[in-house]
Amino acid sequence: MAFSVEERGRPYTTDYQVYFKNAEGKYISPFHDIPMYADEAQNVFHAVIEVPRWTNAKMEIATKERLNPVKQDTKNANLRYVANVFPHKGYIWNYGAIPQTWEDPNHKDEATGFTGDNDPIDICDIGEKVCSRGQVIRVKVLGTLALVDEGEMDWKVIVINTEDPQAHEFNDIEDVRRLKPGYLEATRDWFKRYKVPDGKPENEFAFNGEFQNRDFAIKTVRNTHSLWRALITKQSDGGDLNCINTTVTDSPFRISAAEADAIVKSASPLGPAEPVPSSVDKWFFYEK
Amino acid sequence: MAFSVEERGRPYTTDYQVYFKNAEGKYISPFHDIPMYADEAQNVFHAVIEVPRWTNAKMEIATKERLNPVKQDTKNANLRYVANVFPHKGYIWNYGAIPQTWEDPNHKDEATGFTGDNDPIDICDIGEKVCSRGQVIRVKVLGTLALVDEGEMDWKVIVINTEDPQAHEFNDIEDVRRLKPGYLEATRDWFKRYKVPDGKPENEFAFNGEFQNRDFAIKTVRNTHSLWRALITKQSDGGDLNCINTTVTDSPFRISAAEADAIVKSASPLGPAEPVPSSVDKWFFYEK
Repeated sequence: MAFSVEERGRPYTTDYQVYFKNAEGKYISPFHDIPMYADEAQNVFHAVIEVPRWTNAKMEIATKERLNPVKQDTKNANLRYVANVFPHKGYIWNYGAIPQTWEDPNHKDEATGFTGDNDPIDICDIGEKVCSRGQVIRVKVLGTLALVDEGEMDWKVIVINTEDPQAHEFNDIEDVRRLKPGYLEATRDWFKRYKVPDGKPENEFAFNGEFQNRDFAIKTVRNTHSLWRALITKQSDGGDLNCINTTVTDSPFRISAAEADAIVKSASPLGPAEPVPSSVDKWFFYEK
Repeated sequence: MAFSVEERGRPYTTDYQVYFKNAEGKYISPFHDIPMYADEAQNVFHAVIEVPRWTNAKMEIATKERLNPVKQDTKNANLRYVANVFPHKGYIWNYGAIPQTWEDPNHKDEATGFTGDNDPIDICDIGEKVCSRGQVIRVKVLGTLALVDEGEMDWKVIVINTEDPQAHEFNDIEDVRRLKPGYLEATRDWFKRYKVPDGKPENEFAFNGEFQNRDFAIKTVRNTHSLWRALITKQSDGGDLNCINTTVTDSPFRISAAEADAIVKSASPLGPAEPVPSSVDKWFFYEK
């Protein structure tokens, strides 16, 4: 694998950070330095796994921190865990993001009219393998769900790991419906209700919750790549996003390898994991 | 807690064993020495947790081994893991057995006419907490499902941990239906299909798969306790079951504390866990 990770701090604490390195051992940003395409001719994309399947800790690329390590999200200084909404246990796919993409909050999505959620575009990997946190995989895009999360556009792109033994059988969204019956419905149900245990309303979807196909999804991903290009070259205002990178040659945010080393060196050393709180075990039940 | 466990061998290998001790630190059999009732007047039963919720390793009380430690079941010398049948991940409750019960293979069940599966009666704890392997909990009986597993009677008793914050709200099977909507249907679906990935047919149920209520379930458990009494006093033929115990005063199988110590001492020392094979991660999808 061309990319690797280095953990810092203690897992399940606020100082936990997962930094990324490329094949040359150089520190990179998983947001900005990992190419979106693994193989452009074949439409194979990179995806950064933030949350392994069946886990609960809301780990994500820290878009506002230097070199954008993966960190556990916090809310009011509390570490965030997604609730288990019956029949689901944790995240029901390997969940992550496509690098070098950005859902621009100042840009109205062409298809839906909603502005972006200020994050790289999210993916749900339906491959059978449980990935590791920070793993960079090569994926085929199969379709997309148009989640509107508290009024912001938040595409969820359905992908499959190209290393999955069945990957060759999956080429479009209808293959998911046929070969993994119930998974798309469960995916929509998951995104609709995952914040309800936290006291939030059910989420809404554009397109009446219907999954869009592969071609639509690829076009959507490409659009978010163009928005990212504008961001990284300072054509767009990224607000408090941190665009430091080590490999984007035409970016004014590029820093040297030595500067990147210094950033990672300043982080806490890796320590033993804190236990996941047992409150995370609770299963929430609702009428459908 | 009155009971505790001592692990021996390496988890996820064939030499892994979990032995039990009572409050006096004396080794006991979880099958024969833990009283069925925690509080007979209140109809509170003990349950021995063999498989924590959301895990896959088929751990069970080894009924044919001395002192009946919890061990991982094997099939053709391979360690057994239950498959994940979508939308379920592993066992969907804390799964275990009620001590001092026996589904006698030479006895026809009064209600269904099927003979027993030669095991203590199984429970599904629907409490919100994930229990630990070998934990002995106190449970309220709420109802039962009449699984007929490859022609053998195999009652699945639905219980709730009395320490659950909601335990006072659960008194009968209808409370489960009302307060945890979908859980009973998921439970039936789970037992129906859990062996399909291993190439077996769907399981059948007596009573057309309908859950029986609390009173029926308590009566069923008591029946299996009577069958166990006959076993432990050598009124019934237990075949190759191991009935060694350290506390059942009228049992011809009773041994001394020193003999029990010698049995546990002869086991391998506790070692580091083997990793769970990644093949266990697979999710199996079927049309409902």
